[in-house]
Amino acid sequence: MINDPRSLSPKEFFEKGHNYFLPHISIDCVIFGFHDNQLKVLLLEWKDTHRWCLPGGFVLKGEDINDAADNTLRMRTGLQKIILHQFHTFGDPNRDRGTHGHNTPPHVKGPSWIMERFITIGYWALVEFSKVTPTPDQFSASCQWWEINSIPTLILDHNVIVKKALESLRLQLNDYPVGFNLLPPKFTMPELQSLYETILGETLDRRNFQKKMIALDIITRLNERKQGGAHKAPYLYKFDKKKYQNALKKGISFGI
Amino acid sequence: MINDPRSLSPKEFFEKGHNYFLPHISIDCVIFGFHDNQLKVLLLEWKDTHRWCLPGGFVLKGEDINDAADNTLRMRTGLQKIILHQFHTFGDPNRDRGTHGHNTPPHVKGPSWIMERFITIGYWALVEFSKVTPTPDQFSASCQWWEINSIPTLILDHNVIVKKALESLRLQLNDYPVGFNLLPPKFTMPELQSLYETILGETLDRRNFQKKMIALDIITRLNERKQGGAHKAPYLYKFDKKKYQNALKKGISFGI
Repeated sequence: MINDPRSLSPKEFFEKGHNYFLPHISIDCVIFGFHDNQLKVLLLEWKDTHRWCLPGGFVLKGEDINDAADNTLRMRTGLQKIILHQFHTFGDPNRDRGTHGHNTPPHVKGPSWIMERFITIGYWALVEFSKVTPTPDQFSASCQWWEINSIPTLILDHNVIVKKALESLRLQLNDYPVGFNLLPPKFTMPELQSLYETILGETLDRRNFQKKMIALDIITRLNERKQGGAHKAPYLYKFDKKKYQNALKKGISFGI
Repeated sequence: MINDPRSLSPKEFFEKGHNYFLPHISIDCVIFGFHDNQLKVLLLEWKDTHRWCLPGGFVLKGEDINDAADNTLRMRTGLQKIILHQFHTFGDPNRDRGTHGHNTPPHVKGPSWIMERFITIGYWALVEFSKVTPTPDQFSASCQWWEINSIPTLILDHNVIVKKALESLRLQLNDYPVGFNLLPPKFTMPELQSLYETILGETLDRRNFQKKMIALDIITRLNERKQGGAHKAPYLYKFDKKKYQNALKKGISFGI
């Protein structure tokens, strides 16, 4: 037994990975990055094929799938302590590399477990992308942020996985105050609205937005306006930490 | 190859199932039944151990996981054409029958694939329970509805799966008009509120509830009151089918 099977060389991974990992099961991570009213997705470029894909990996035989997702993300991108949300498992029977035009690399001996059908468990995270430094591992030539509306054609069904992750992220805004950790400690209502509009990909009515946000009862208006040259500077707000934590835990319940 | 590996006898299932099904992957279905302001869950009693569990099964080697969920539910319970929502995949490394005190039945020869670790994909559905007739299959002694607050101790982590499914169902009420197919074509606001209160397991404020429901803009008040002896009979409502279908498809978006 080696120390960490995730550090196997690509050749060893194809030939011996089945000794360490569960067959037919993989992990894929959709990492959304928010910064300056842009929403991006982190993608990897494989060394051998130069095709783009989501950061992904496999589950060790004795490993929890959530730990596998954390470890995969850390190894593939250098990102640590990211909160991952499991959102969907993809199980089309044609999810295998052969069907999608990928062959076993020529230096690999015999048939590989990697070429079999894989059911993949999808996770997403939302991070402030200027705060993280993606670092590719031994499999990847590069690791880059792509603007959500201009991502390339990805391997397998990875474009579908990104689409479904985005739907899940958007729905999550209905249920949890999920995006608030992306704002500075004091922020204006227009800044909060921009965050929502960027994630939702649509323009929201200013008055309705403000009404709904105040009804959530998790932000407090300060007796302070944003500095700057604007004619009528907007008020600053901050979170009520206790109520915010409670909403994160319990969800924004229907009854409010 | 036999016609349908799901009709294997229990002994054949333990001894030969791995020829037909993917290893390490299972399906579990949490079927919620609503009727008369009660929320119930459908459970199976195994013939051999007489322990209760969720209706579950496995994925054929060439089968989509969603089809496996449909087929499993149909075979185990006789329920057809139920809309299943995939909600979470459970992947604790100790999800194996040995760890949880289940042994291979004495009549089975050799070690069985069934005793290995399983990652299970969870699905839920919400049905009008008076309209379905559960029918157990060859593995089950019985198939019964249990009141949500009094379900027994189930096998493996099935109690955790039920809890997580209930959380998912409750969150879904924030995102989609999910429970409306359980009401008669014409219904009163108190009936609609009772449905929500039963699913959420809590009392809602009458005035806020009515306000939110009307804001959703998917129901229409009729010029008609409910028949009966009540002093002040409540108005009847019906769905605006077009808007309702749209809300089901698009979700109850944040902006409304």
